[in-house]
Amino acid sequence: MKVVAIGGGTGLSVLLRGLKTYDLDLTAVVAVTDEGGSSGRIRQELEVPPPGDVRNNIIALAQDESLMSQIFSYRFQSNGTLSNHSVGNIILAALTRMTGSFNMAVKLASNILAIKGRVLPVCEQLVRLIATYDDGTTIVGETQITQKRAKIISVRLDRSVRALDEVLDVLQKADLILLGPGSLYTSVITNLLVEGVSQTINQNKNAVKIYIANIMTQPGETLNMTLQDHVHEIEKYLGDSLDFIIANNSEFPQQVIDSYQLQGAEPVISKGTVDKRYVLRPLFKTIYEPNDPRIKARHDSDLLAKTILEICGREFG
Amino acid sequence: MKVVAIGGGTGLSVLLRGLKTYDLDLTAVVAVTDEGGSSGRIRQELEVPPPGDVRNNIIALAQDESLMSQIFSYRFQSNGTLSNHSVGNIILAALTRMTGSFNMAVKLASNILAIKGRVLPVCEQLVRLIATYDDGTTIVGETQITQKRAKIISVRLDRSVRALDEVLDVLQKADLILLGPGSLYTSVITNLLVEGVSQTINQNKNAVKIYIANIMTQPGETLNMTLQDHVHEIEKYLGDSLDFIIANNSEFPQQVIDSYQLQGAEPVISKGTVDKRYVLRPLFKTIYEPNDPRIKARHDSDLLAKTILEICGREFG
Repeated sequence: MKVVAIGGGTGLSVLLRGLKTYDLDLTAVVAVTDEGGSSGRIRQELEVPPPGDVRNNIIALAQDESLMSQIFSYRFQSNGTLSNHSVGNIILAALTRMTGSFNMAVKLASNILAIKGRVLPVCEQLVRLIATYDDGTTIVGETQITQKRAKIISVRLDRSVRALDEVLDVLQKADLILLGPGSLYTSVITNLLVEGVSQTINQNKNAVKIYIANIMTQPGETLNMTLQDHVHEIEKYLGDSLDFIIANNSEFPQQVIDSYQLQGAEPVISKGTVDKRYVLRPLFKTIYEPNDPRIKARHDSDLLAKTILEICGREFG
Repeated sequence: MKVVAIGGGTGLSVLLRGLKTYDLDLTAVVAVTDEGGSSGRIRQELEVPPPGDVRNNIIALAQDESLMSQIFSYRFQSNGTLSNHSVGNIILAALTRMTGSFNMAVKLASNILAIKGRVLPVCEQLVRLIATYDDGTTIVGETQITQKRAKIISVRLDRSVRALDEVLDVLQKADLILLGPGSLYTSVITNLLVEGVSQTINQNKNAVKIYIANIMTQPGETLNMTLQDHVHEIEKYLGDSLDFIIANNSEFPQQVIDSYQLQGAEPVISKGTVDKRYVLRPLFKTIYEPNDPRIKARHDSDLLAKTILEICGREFG
C-alpha cells in the first residue's frame, strides 16, 4: 500500500514512527516554511531551506539506535554560536550547498541513515508563510506568526512555488494520503499552499484521505478552535472533502490540562455532533522531557498507526 | 610492519596518503594544541580538543570518493557564524560531547569513514603550547606563537599531561616511527612534550626512527633555520638520536621561491655537510589551490612513501 503522509516536524515524525513498523510504501512530504531555531538560523545564513523538519522525519524513519541517527539528533548546548544547532541540520545544510539541491541533500542523508521509506521536501525554494488576522493585520514568517495570539483568517505563501515533481508523483499514485498531525497552518496547510499539492490530492480519486487532528490547540495558531474548525480549515485549503478524520477523545489527567492551560492551550474536542467520517479514539500519551517542566501530550505512535490501518482494512477490504 | 606517524594536520595527512596504499599496520598520532580557525573556535566554545588535525588525518586514511569523506571535508563559506567551520570538525565535536571522550569520538568517526589504519589524538586533555623567545618573552597559544616572527628558544605545555595509553602502546610495539612532516614546534614537537611519548620512543630500541623534514621554513616557527637546526630541535625534545632524516633536495622553480619569499619563507636546506643518516631526495610537488594566489610546495605522497619504504627495506632486510 502506497502511503503519503503530509506535515511538518514533530507530529509527522510521531506518525511515521508508528507506520514504519508495518509493510508499507511510505513517503513523508515535509513543509519548508519553518523559520525558528537552528533551522531558521541556517536558512538565513546559508540560504538553504530549513532542514529541521526534514531531519526529524529522516530520524523517525531510521533505526533509532544507529550511530548516524544519534549524530543527526545531537544538539549542541553551549554559550557560543553553535549552541542549539542540530548536527543533522548542519549536515543537511552542507549537503545542500555541496550538491546545490535540498532534495538531493535529503536523499543523501536518507541513504546515510538507511531509512525505511522516503522523505521529500514539498518544494526546494525558500518560501515564507504569510498570515492575515481578523484584526486586519498581516504577518510574514512562521516565528512571528506563532507569536501573535489572534485569529488567523487566511494564510498564503510569499510567492508562487510549485511542488517537486516527485511529490506530485507520489500523491498521484497514493492509496492513502494522511494530513497531520502537526501545527494546523505552519505544518499541514503550508504544504497545501504549494502549487499542485491540493489539486493532485483531489485528482487522485482512489486514495483514502485522512486528516489526523492534533491533541491540543496551539495558542499561536488554533486558539479556541474546535475539532470541526480544524477540519473546516483543512478542507478549505484542500478544496475538497476528507474521507476520514482521526481525533483523540481521551479523558486527560488534570495535570496535563493544567500544564497546557498555562500556555493557553486546551484539548482539541468536538463541539456538537460529528458525522460517520470521524473516528474518535483515545490516542494520546504524555511525554516528560528532561529540563522541561511542561508535560507534553502526544499521539501514541502505535495506537495511531493501528487506527489508520484499521480504517484502511475496512476501506480496501 | 607496524608504523606510527607523529605530527599534526597537513603534513601528516600528506604522508598518510602515500603510506595507506601499502600493506602496513598504520597509526597516526596527532597533536592537540591547535587553537586557530574552526578548530580553535570549537575548542573554545565547546571545551573539546581541537578536531581539525584529527579530521585531516581521518580523511587522508578514508576512501577519497566516499560521501561521508566529502561531508567531513566540507567547509561552510558564508557571512555568518558557521562560516569557515568544517562539518567534520562539528561532527567530531558532537561525538566528543555525546561520548565524553575525544578518543572515542575519533574512533567512531574513523569507523564511519571506514578508514585504513588508525588515528589517535596524543592525549585527550585541553592543553596549550607555550613558547619562550630569544628576546625573553613568553607566549601562550599556537595562534599567537605562529604570529610572532622571532626565534623560539624553547616550548612547553601549560600543564603536565600524559599520553593516551593506546599511544604509548603503539609506540612501544612500533617497527617504524615517523616524525613529521609538519610544523616543527606546533605539529611535531608538541607531541613530544606530552608525558611518556619521547620516553617510550627511546625505550623502543627495535624501531627505526625517521624524521621527515619540511620542504619550506615557516616564518612563525622556523625562520632562517637550516635542515640541521630542525634535526637538532627534534633530537633535543626527543632526548635521543634519530636513525634517519629524510629531506627534500629539489631545485625549485623561481616562482615557487618567489611565492614563499613573499611570506618570509625559504627552502629547508642543509648548510654544511651531512652524515649518512641523511637521505636527500627530490620529494616535492607544487599545489595550486583555488582562490589562493600562493603556490604551495608539498611533499609528493608517493615519492615520500617510497623513500621511507626503501629505507625500511634496507634496515629490515
